[in-house]
Amino acid sequence: MLPQKTIKHILKLQQKKYRKEFAEFLVEGVKGVYEGLRSDADVLLVLVEGSRRDEPEFAELIQLAEEKDVAIEFVVRKDIGEIKTTETFPGVLAVISIPEIAPEDVLEGGPVIVLDNIKDPGNLGTIIRTADWFGIEHIVLSEDSVDPYNPKVVRSTMGSIFRIKIFEAQHLENFLRNASKEYVLVGLDLDAAPIEKLKPKKNAMYIFGSESHGLRPELEQMLHERYTIAGKGSAESLNVAVSAGILMSKL
Amino acid sequence: MLPQKTIKHILKLQQKKYRKEFAEFLVEGVKGVYEGLRSDADVLLVLVEGSRRDEPEFAELIQLAEEKDVAIEFVVRKDIGEIKTTETFPGVLAVISIPEIAPEDVLEGGPVIVLDNIKDPGNLGTIIRTADWFGIEHIVLSEDSVDPYNPKVVRSTMGSIFRIKIFEAQHLENFLRNASKEYVLVGLDLDAAPIEKLKPKKNAMYIFGSESHGLRPELEQMLHERYTIAGKGSAESLNVAVSAGILMSKL
Repeated sequence: MLPQKTIKHILKLQQKKYRKEFAEFLVEGVKGVYEGLRSDADVLLVLVEGSRRDEPEFAELIQLAEEKDVAIEFVVRKDIGEIKTTETFPGVLAVISIPEIAPEDVLEGGPVIVLDNIKDPGNLGTIIRTADWFGIEHIVLSEDSVDPYNPKVVRSTMGSIFRIKIFEAQHLENFLRNASKEYVLVGLDLDAAPIEKLKPKKNAMYIFGSESHGLRPELEQMLHERYTIAGKGSAESLNVAVSAGILMSKL
Repeated sequence: MLPQKTIKHILKLQQKKYRKEFAEFLVEGVKGVYEGLRSDADVLLVLVEGSRRDEPEFAELIQLAEEKDVAIEFVVRKDIGEIKTTETFPGVLAVISIPEIAPEDVLEGGPVIVLDNIKDPGNLGTIIRTADWFGIEHIVLSEDSVDPYNPKVVRSTMGSIFRIKIFEAQHLENFLRNASKEYVLVGLDLDAAPIEKLKPKKNAMYIFGSESHGLRPELEQMLHERYTIAGKGSAESLNVAVSAGILMSKL
């Protein structure tokens, strides 16, 4: 059985304040843990449901953890009931260090996706996954966005969280004001040029406003270019993960 | 207070089998109910949290319901605790008839989005909303897909569910075999032509496979054209709502 101390620590990591305090987060599921082990991430502990250790994909995972000298614990049903973050425990969970990302880390050149006030964990996870698909390595989040290490975000990235550098700005406006000296700031907006006219630039930031309120005036006035994804139906807006996906497909 | 019979009926509509039996579904929230009332949908009942009836957007909604001769009930906190489908009740809920959609209704010409084995309610809702944005009116679902009248799907369509004709196929393979006489069947796949080469046709069906398994061989062999959304990163796949969004943006 898992020590009570470990159980308590894992439970704490389901809350944002403790994730910040310990700079650690949780990843559940074979796919996510596997991607974590394969990446440069600092995996601190892998918990495996003991009864599944001989299934081929679990065996492979355990071997990879052993090769990387990562601590492994085998857990029983009772432990799982206490630590799982979803209805059904997918058999494996890892505790992983949150990487320290400085502003310079996302200012290495190349496109940057900037999300203001993104609240939906599934949307953020999907955007991280889409960025990874299109080879876009940098994402910046405003100070009031959902925690990217929230279990729901992590799950919907499908392992892509380990390949994208995510900078959580303390003050997005200041960050963009600084960045605007070297980067072209591009925004999606209503009534602007059609997105088909967008010409990808080497150093550009693509800024998405909040789903409910759109781009804030403070950010809008900093933009160098603005584009519209033209629709001809009756929906009021597109889902932000879809807008971001359409934009990223053009870079 | 709401009659116990009404409460029971609403609770039943949170389950798929009763939605099918009664051909009714639930819509929560000002935006959704408002779109329902504005559409051709047959709204059977509107429940409003009594304490909010004088808020401007609620008053507008009530007036619209009255104009359309829709029954309105005012409910108290206690009732809400019993009927709400989400943590926080957004103040209004409607019971609406599920429209009867025949195959002909989606074969009126124009593009059709076909989803095989789509399971995630948020993804389906987002695809319906995106279709509505781009003016695509027809969606076909395979027999094993999530119920489009599931409250989570309805919520994430943001009111677009009332503007799109959704046909739930009994047997998608047979449906497509028939349709292929008059429609070009287009699929997204790995290692096909880049999607930039796609030329929209008047009568075309765009087929998306399941998120976990991709296109089934039975469907794949029916395709007339195949395209790939090329990525250069490391993610294994795109979220289906993002893929569908990128494709729809090209139609």
